[in-house]
Amino acid sequence: MKYPLHLLKLIDVLKKLPGVGSKSAERFAFDILTWPEDSLQQMAEIVRTTATELRHCTQCGCLIGMENCPFCDSIRHNPQAICVVAMPRDVFAIEGTREYHGLFHVLGALLSPMEGIGHEQLKIERLLNRIAMHSIKEVVIALDSTLEGDATALYLKQQLDPLNVKISRLAFGLPMGSSLDYVDGGTLARAFIARGHF
Amino acid sequence: MKYPLHLLKLIDVLKKLPGVGSKSAERFAFDILTWPEDSLQQMAEIVRTTATELRHCTQCGCLIGMENCPFCDSIRHNPQAICVVAMPRDVFAIEGTREYHGLFHVLGALLSPMEGIGHEQLKIERLLNRIAMHSIKEVVIALDSTLEGDATALYLKQQLDPLNVKISRLAFGLPMGSSLDYVDGGTLARAFIARGHF
Repeated sequence: MKYPLHLLKLIDVLKKLPGVGSKSAERFAFDILTWPEDSLQQMAEIVRTTATELRHCTQCGCLIGMENCPFCDSIRHNPQAICVVAMPRDVFAIEGTREYHGLFHVLGALLSPMEGIGHEQLKIERLLNRIAMHSIKEVVIALDSTLEGDATALYLKQQLDPLNVKISRLAFGLPMGSSLDYVDGGTLARAFIARGHF
Repeated sequence: MKYPLHLLKLIDVLKKLPGVGSKSAERFAFDILTWPEDSLQQMAEIVRTTATELRHCTQCGCLIGMENCPFCDSIRHNPQAICVVAMPRDVFAIEGTREYHGLFHVLGALLSPMEGIGHEQLKIERLLNRIAMHSIKEVVIALDSTLEGDATALYLKQQLDPLNVKISRLAFGLPMGSSLDYVDGGTLARAFIARGHF
């Protein structure tokens, strides 16, 4: 006996969520079936209006609601630094550290020949324009420590080198609370090379 | 910097899914933000119409679509057996085994004084009526092997004993593919007591 058609549809749509396979999607679907009608309507409404209620700032690419972009606020121009990240979510992670108060620039992608993402997708002119416009003194590259992140960081460095700006990248080293036994050799080597006075 | 309001709403509604905490809900939400508009509309529509497209059979309590209940089909009356389960999902799990072809009866709950679920919620008269109506010869109790499942099974047995029907319950023993090292003592004891000729 197969599931009713609508249940199959519900399972299929839930399987689109990242890391959700058939088993989890079924568990979610059967749980949703027990929700009261108004919870269903509320979820439907929130999903339906997502594309209209949330947008990306045309300047910095950050994810924002209907208000003016809080990340482009003039109060943020003071440190004259711009932090380059791959995705809108990274902005919130860096904000959470409370260590940085400058501007952001969301690339929206990392270079990846495998996925057909080349230099043109990064729209580097937008970044160069903003650096000039805001008289930026430092560009902080905050990209993943992956093949794609490294390639993109290198490309950015090449493009930014001719400008008179400081270019920095997030430090590599041991994650907080880590045990040396569990840290991979590459990380350990980078942490060793970058060791500081204690 | 907090997330935009609509993103918080989206995260909140996703957190209602079973086993989904803040971190997973955020991951889901940021993934949903990258979905094309028509996927968002499709998901919204499916969730919105769930309560109207899926219903529970008024006879057996199984989850069905808009068609007649396939679990109440007269072809299923032949074995004159009825399998009592707690939730609609259990029906599909048992169907998947292809070991049973009789009727089902979904209780919709298990006895649980902690959650305030008493005898009256089980609506045992519905089951007694169906047993009489279909001249049932065997009632298979297929409930969880938990405190609530055991209590409910015992209650069912008390209620059904006066009737002239065979009452059976799913066997307890080693799960398939299990190693004795990892099986708990209670299961091992039940498997030992119920050992069969080999």
